[in-house]
Amino acid sequence: MSERIAFWKGHGTENDFVLLPDPDGSRLGDLSRELTAALCDRRAGLGADGVLRVVRTEAYDDPAAVAARGEAEWFMDYRNADGSSSEMCGNGIRVFGRYLADHEHVDISGPLPVATRAGTKVLRFAGDLVSVDMGVPEVLGDTKVSVGSRSWPALHVSLGNPHAVAFVDSLDQAGALLEPPEHDPGDYPAGVNVEFVVRHGDRHVAMRVHERGSGETRSCGTGACAAMVAAALADGVHEGGPGGTSYRVDVAGGRLEVAWTEQGRVVLTGPALLVARGEWLGPRTRARRSPG
Amino acid sequence: MSERIAFWKGHGTENDFVLLPDPDGSRLGDLSRELTAALCDRRAGLGADGVLRVVRTEAYDDPAAVAARGEAEWFMDYRNADGSSSEMCGNGIRVFGRYLADHEHVDISGPLPVATRAGTKVLRFAGDLVSVDMGVPEVLGDTKVSVGSRSWPALHVSLGNPHAVAFVDSLDQAGALLEPPEHDPGDYPAGVNVEFVVRHGDRHVAMRVHERGSGETRSCGTGACAAMVAAALADGVHEGGPGGTSYRVDVAGGRLEVAWTEQGRVVLTGPALLVARGEWLGPRTRARRSPG
Repeated sequence: MSERIAFWKGHGTENDFVLLPDPDGSRLGDLSRELTAALCDRRAGLGADGVLRVVRTEAYDDPAAVAARGEAEWFMDYRNADGSSSEMCGNGIRVFGRYLADHEHVDISGPLPVATRAGTKVLRFAGDLVSVDMGVPEVLGDTKVSVGSRSWPALHVSLGNPHAVAFVDSLDQAGALLEPPEHDPGDYPAGVNVEFVVRHGDRHVAMRVHERGSGETRSCGTGACAAMVAAALADGVHEGGPGGTSYRVDVAGGRLEVAWTEQGRVVLTGPALLVARGEWLGPRTRARRSPG
Repeated sequence: MSERIAFWKGHGTENDFVLLPDPDGSRLGDLSRELTAALCDRRAGLGADGVLRVVRTEAYDDPAAVAARGEAEWFMDYRNADGSSSEMCGNGIRVFGRYLADHEHVDISGPLPVATRAGTKVLRFAGDLVSVDMGVPEVLGDTKVSVGSRSWPALHVSLGNPHAVAFVDSLDQAGALLEPPEHDPGDYPAGVNVEFVVRHGDRHVAMRVHERGSGETRSCGTGACAAMVAAALADGVHEGGPGGTSYRVDVAGGRLEVAWTEQGRVVLTGPALLVARGEWLGPRTRARRSPG
């Protein structure tokens, strides 16, 4: 493995990622936890919420990549900022798609399948916007969240990962959110992502999100989907109606659009941008002096 | 100005910077506030504590650069993360020196003068370490700082910018430091940088720093110098003695060495690393699709 590693930096509604192109799986070996954490370090590294390794399913022996061969050419090898591997990220896969479209010459005139550890996801492109089909949400009933002495009823929604969606009068009500909101451990034995949602107009909401393990973040793709599902149900605009329905969801890092289709699937749409590209030199690398 | 801008990313004890090489002053024009802020944005940009534009004194009409012509070939055009211009940064100028040494072929066998808005500073190089002469500190008497209900006596030290150095029993005593420590506005009409210092051994201290306008940071070069001066005075190891004296100062982002010379000057020494280089594409740039 060369010490110098080509990278791209991008973000979707300010959920940001370092992308590591490794199409034939030969450049990065097993992509160590140490390297991932060094890249994601926001002071000593490049800084990111996670790393997206770009590798062909044919070139990677992860069981999820092997299983997707024939169905998807590309595999999103997603790693959290701490170096652990992860399954899916709604904003990450949209940035991943932007990279494929701009730099790997994939055909984006129709749907683009991308393999992940949570199965193959389908992307669609329209100008600067990239959509991802996030699948069928599970609505699991009522629950409750609290911050300090304040409590709200919430809806338990799963998008593969667990969410609690609480409607609030104003986004300030949740306070500084320096600690995870309290929740029912019977509903959420492995913790929960909490969305605080206000209505901004017809089919238009805004939210703050506290992600388990990360704290409050600028955006969360599955969180935006959960917030939309809760809002649509509260509004009596159920899934499965002809033509489906669509909501605008404002997050701290920008604006997302979430559709709930006739087939009961949620589709997340938003900007996905590449802002820089370069070469990682390693945390301790120093160039040798040129003789001149 | 081209939309694509070459950059380097580096840090000194995790005080991190985007460096923009512009030797003949022609590439970046006036380096707008907007561009600087976009580069330093830790989610939508590259992320940094500030931008260091690398320009020759001959090629830049800033009065400080004009005044330094003949004395220093290079000017450190330092900008804060919000886009405002700034005078000096002890960690920034050391990273600036690392870039000059590795990529502009400057002679580092002896002292290297670098012009700044706070006058010309002298760098010295030894392996991975870079030193900067920070000048003569001013010791301005006793003061006091408080966090919550707790107060400590402190020493007022100026390194061009104002510091209050408080010795504490443990670095935890200052708490979460989410708010600026309280201080005497008579001593510090424009705010203050506060160092909380513990002793770790003979001529070895550790500190936390709260920087005015930034909050708690991983490192502060002038803060490390102020902490050393206060510790040396408390230890009765005054300036001006034969050979001077030197302290190790541990900060959250690493280890610095501060010497107080026979001439009464403080010299800050520590690692200065370049970790990446690349090309900024702009916050809204998207590559055109290749025809293939």
